[in-house]
Amino acid sequence: MNFGSDNQAGASQRVIDAVVTANAGNAHGYGSDPWSERATELLRKSFQCDLEAFFVPTGTAANSLSLACLAQPWEIILCHQHAHILNDEATAPEFFTGGARLISISGRDGKLEPRHLAEYWKFAGKEYPHNSRASVLSVTQISEDGLVYTPQEISALSSAARQHGLKVHMDGARFANAVAALNCAPADISWKAGVDVLCLGATKNGALAAEAVLFFDKQLAEQFIFRRKRSGHLISKSRFVGAQLAAWLQDDYWLQLAAHANGCARKLAKELAAIPGIRITWPAEANEVFVVLRKQLAHKLRAAGAEFYEWPISGLPPGAILADDEAYIRLVTSFLTKDSEIEKFSAIARDA
Amino acid sequence: MNFGSDNQAGASQRVIDAVVTANAGNAHGYGSDPWSERATELLRKSFQCDLEAFFVPTGTAANSLSLACLAQPWEIILCHQHAHILNDEATAPEFFTGGARLISISGRDGKLEPRHLAEYWKFAGKEYPHNSRASVLSVTQISEDGLVYTPQEISALSSAARQHGLKVHMDGARFANAVAALNCAPADISWKAGVDVLCLGATKNGALAAEAVLFFDKQLAEQFIFRRKRSGHLISKSRFVGAQLAAWLQDDYWLQLAAHANGCARKLAKELAAIPGIRITWPAEANEVFVVLRKQLAHKLRAAGAEFYEWPISGLPPGAILADDEAYIRLVTSFLTKDSEIEKFSAIARDA
Amino acid sequence: MNFGSDNQAGASQRVIDAVVTANAGNAHGYGSDPWSERATELLRKSFQCDLEAFFVPTGTAANSLSLACLAQPWEIILCHQHAHILNDEATAPEFFTGGARLISISGRDGKLEPRHLAEYWKFAGKEYPHNSRASVLSVTQISEDGLVYTPQEISALSSAARQHGLKVHMDGARFANAVAALNCAPADISWKAGVDVLCLGATKNGALAAEAVLFFDKQLAEQFIFRRKRSGHLISKSRFVGAQLAAWLQDDYWLQLAAHANGCARKLAKELAAIPGIRITWPAEANEVFVVLRKQLAHKLRAAGAEFYEWPISGLPPGAILADDEAYIRLVTSFLTKDSEIEKFSAIARDA
Amino acid sequence: MNFGSDNQAGASQRVIDAVVTANAGNAHGYGSDPWSERATELLRKSFQCDLEAFFVPTGTAANSLSLACLAQPWEIILCHQHAHILNDEATAPEFFTGGARLISISGRDGKLEPRHLAEYWKFAGKEYPHNSRASVLSVTQISEDGLVYTPQEISALSSAARQHGLKVHMDGARFANAVAALNCAPADISWKAGVDVLCLGATKNGALAAEAVLFFDKQLAEQFIFRRKRSGHLISKSRFVGAQLAAWLQDDYWLQLAAHANGCARKLAKELAAIPGIRITWPAEANEVFVVLRKQLAHKLRAAGAEFYEWPISGLPPGAILADDEAYIRLVTSFLTKDSEIEKFSAIARDA
Repeated sequence: MNFGSDNQAGASQRVIDAVVTANAGNAHGYGSDPWSERATELLRKSFQCDLEAFFVPTGTAANSLSLACLAQPWEIILCHQHAHILNDEATAPEFFTGGARLISISGRDGKLEPRHLAEYWKFAGKEYPHNSRASVLSVTQISEDGLVYTPQEISALSSAARQHGLKVHMDGARFANAVAALNCAPADISWKAGVDVLCLGATKNGALAAEAVLFFDKQLAEQFIFRRKRSGHLISKSRFVGAQLAAWLQDDYWLQLAAHANGCARKLAKELAAIPGIRITWPAEANEVFVVLRKQLAHKLRAAGAEFYEWPISGLPPGAILADDEAYIRLVTSFLTKDSEIEKFSAIARDA
Repeated sequence: MNFGSDNQAGASQRVIDAVVTANAGNAHGYGSDPWSERATELLRKSFQCDLEAFFVPTGTAANSLSLACLAQPWEIILCHQHAHILNDEATAPEFFTGGARLISISGRDGKLEPRHLAEYWKFAGKEYPHNSRASVLSVTQISEDGLVYTPQEISALSSAARQHGLKVHMDGARFANAVAALNCAPADISWKAGVDVLCLGATKNGALAAEAVLFFDKQLAEQFIFRRKRSGHLISKSRFVGAQLAAWLQDDYWLQLAAHANGCARKLAKELAAIPGIRITWPAEANEVFVVLRKQLAHKLRAAGAEFYEWPISGLPPGAILADDEAYIRLVTSFLTKDSEIEKFSAIARDA
Repeated sequence: MNFGSDNQAGASQRVIDAVVTANAGNAHGYGSDPWSERATELLRKSFQCDLEAFFVPTGTAANSLSLACLAQPWEIILCHQHAHILNDEATAPEFFTGGARLISISGRDGKLEPRHLAEYWKFAGKEYPHNSRASVLSVTQISEDGLVYTPQEISALSSAARQHGLKVHMDGARFANAVAALNCAPADISWKAGVDVLCLGATKNGALAAEAVLFFDKQLAEQFIFRRKRSGHLISKSRFVGAQLAAWLQDDYWLQLAAHANGCARKLAKELAAIPGIRITWPAEANEVFVVLRKQLAHKLRAAGAEFYEWPISGLPPGAILADDEAYIRLVTSFLTKDSEIEKFSAIARDA
Repeated sequence: MNFGSDNQAGASQRVIDAVVTANAGNAHGYGSDPWSERATELLRKSFQCDLEAFFVPTGTAANSLSLACLAQPWEIILCHQHAHILNDEATAPEFFTGGARLISISGRDGKLEPRHLAEYWKFAGKEYPHNSRASVLSVTQISEDGLVYTPQEISALSSAARQHGLKVHMDGARFANAVAALNCAPADISWKAGVDVLCLGATKNGALAAEAVLFFDKQLAEQFIFRRKRSGHLISKSRFVGAQLAAWLQDDYWLQLAAHANGCARKLAKELAAIPGIRITWPAEANEVFVVLRKQLAHKLRAAGAEFYEWPISGLPPGAILADDEAYIRLVTSFLTKDSEIEKFSAIARDA
């Protein structure tokens, strides 16, 4: 019963097979290998546009490197209060940008909305250079609370951002889950909706370690190769990253993997929602389920072998309250999640 | 009628005289001059302790250099929502620290309180190194809203900070005004109250360009000379900075200057408070008066030659609201403010 | 005939097998997996000491992160004129250290020697903080010119470094080749010879992407986890890195791989040295052969399918000169190099 | 007998008088004062062009801030081996640029020459982003060895720089001495000779603390105000900096001050050159005299009250050698130097 994180699952079958296959013989590196070229082609096809793609081994690298291409060191990056770049990357954005500042504008609302931006702008100091100017809006798809932004929502955010001269960055660590949930084209929630740069995560969805940074505006990409190299993220045996991504993208395998994970979460949420004393805090729109349950039950589940994380209570929806004997937990499903895990988990919860 | 800022006043008489006197002949520089030594002696005497002192030309340099000695690039500096380091220094703290993060914990409350710290700590992620850890609390004395922290308040904050392993930094751009307002010893609201590093501002209180960074814990000062030099803040003809500070400190001249400014603000606030339609938002405890008044009156005052800044409405006290026809302004008095300026300003306001 | 680089070879058999095996099921990440623990154990055993080990995906990350733990931003790192950190990492050391400076002290001599350090020290400005102070000596084993430092040579360098208060960093991208060439214990050319931190490269010697940073003085390692995380080098599915390293270290597999590569280079050098018109510039002590040959021959070899790089003529030994019709090339052998490649290459060269 | 440094002299008469005069009453700050505007006007007039000017308190700030506007963090700044930015600014250029690298290309030749650049380019690695690319050439006028670049020499350097896509930065800490020595127009050795940015130093030539950064290409200046603010170099009471510069520029006062200093150095050099056992190492073309003399004489001069610095022997001209009983010293004259100082110094040297 592993609901700890989708990065606790290993690599999906086609991805690991591709790595093994790519291992035969010698090959050029540093991105000049045929696998990386193939992956770029597939990205262009999947996103139906002539994007610029760069590959790096981690999501933190992808986010920070792309933000550094968008924000000057004296500028501000706006994001959600629960944003991964704000809470879980150890001031990596500051490191890569040379000191740009992250400011959260959402409060505890589930998603970023144009009104958050409007409110920020109204109060923001505009005496430059004394005050700092916001230049980037970062949106996480799916959100850190497991919610999916619709194409319309992304478009509205992008329009609002552009009005104030901001570029739009998307942390897409679980972008695949959003595409699968919306059953839309990848373009619909990226460049067609005004996103300038997308960090497309594969690691959480069946790769070993592979993230793609997609620039839909190629001019913004000019500094990327320099920033990637000097931060140690240009992989020498790049064929192994390219092979992962090519296999992952081929025949929409990435969307199949994500659809499986989403289905599991939906099922898990449905089962749990029906159990008295358990509250689902945010709609389980993709592959994460946020749950309030009794501490005693949490212990029992763990004792039975269930893996999951307790979640910061700052992540509760506005108005939600935790009783003293309750815990707030996050359950994540993956391409590897089995029906039997969901059933066993639910059964224990029901019987408690 | 200049109430724009205390840095719009020039240099006080004894300070400018000292600069002229110090100009005679040749002298060693880079801090190795007798004026700088004399200033350090006077600081030790004024603060009744064996502190380490460094001089720099601006408050932004003083704050950022000292913060960089206290916080690692992956750590967090807690401060008030209105803090100058957060709002008016163009990501200088990030630049000097190499990417440490500022987080405001006060909401719109007038002063930082131990409960703000407790609340922050309760919600802060503690999964290091994924989450970032707070390592410094920065307090501004007098506060950006013109309030004076008492010795007890500083002590309470420092204790709370120390409980969580935080160092205490004080932005004392108007520290002199606080000492004058409290009629206390400088030590009472600095090292005796748990402050580790004080940025003692002279510029806003009668110097040309001179700020002293005082380390009460000398071990924390080890990196300062390197950081100062490589940021271009080691002045070659240091005698001119030393001479300013020595004259400013001698015979408590600095406190006389501050007391004058404070008295002017008190008088101005009293006059204005008595005028219908004018609201003083924060108690005028030192040399700043924050005022809500009708926009029409603001125009009239400006037309009559009054200088003042409109102030961000995010600086209003909790619950305070601005009507559509009202403006929020800040009035600052200085060592140079004349009674006649106050009287003329008040008269216009009364007659409006 | 691939002599382009040892990072053009893929992964060695046991390493790729280990990755596949490690893929089964779920596992904790971010370094908390049993494979990473096993790799650390094996490192402690191989190096016969209680070291602290951290894993990262690239050599640039390994070098820069460890240098950042040793040098303050206002300090100097001394290295060889041909050092990879100086020439091939795009100011990564500056980025990670926050601005420390690299200075080469070797001239075109093949190896760093204590006299280079003495000479540097003699001329170096010592008016701190105006001048910058050297705090680290970085040595590359095997050297960028393919030479192997003996235990005595490393010890002599370390002693000289320590005399001036410098820490010793070793770029061990091809450390395995040195151990194999010297037939010594890994400890003999690392901690026993005064090395403080070793970047042990596996990627060039049969791993997919895995480098280990070994701190022999654990106190120096305190900042590493923070620096690694904020630079995006903490791998989430860390089992795949751990598995590579564990398989690589097990039963001295890494030394077998290196010994093969070394043997190939020795043979290649011997064959080429016997051919008139070809000059070997540096003794082929490990797995690299530096060769001066006629341009025409270089073209012919390439036309026949040989891969190799032209090498900067700044890498020629002191006194060596290149004729107008000559080229300077580097030939690298790997665990994958086949006898037939060497024979074919030599045959073409002989027949030219 | 002060020949220690021109920054050991205080402020010149008109400059200190201007500071006192500017002190009357209130004034806007942060550069928005009439004195700063006046200084900018005078700069445009003196340089006969529509330049962009920014004022900062130190030469290190001027150099580093302007370099940061010219070089990306992954680029290289070429300079002379004795350059102040390389040797005396504590990695400030690295700090401000975010990690760009300084590389000296002159060897011990007295001046930078186009052939140094050509030689560098020939050997420089060009595999970007692995190698770093040079983007700036920094020239010091007068040179750190007291030499004056002619307009023709600057033009030749600029042309060579531009051929390789480099911008030209001039460290003009003693630019005034060069103009006075050449008796040329300031434009002749700046923008007309291809200089993009000039750091025009006033501090060493009669100001208290004032340096002007002049951008002849305004597009290059776009980031300056942000970089200046966040590095703490935007002076609040800017009138005092503006007043210094305006007085200094008015009626070519700056050139009179410099001419006096130059004349003193010429005289001093002439006197010393005539004394057996004393060698002038570099022609005393401006206000610095570099001298080899017996250690015993150096002691005697110091004992008699002479101030001067021993100079790094790495600063000796190619081929020059120091005997064991000899010292290498630098003598600097200033606007304040008196004939009597020169005569006394020479007399002691003669009588030794």
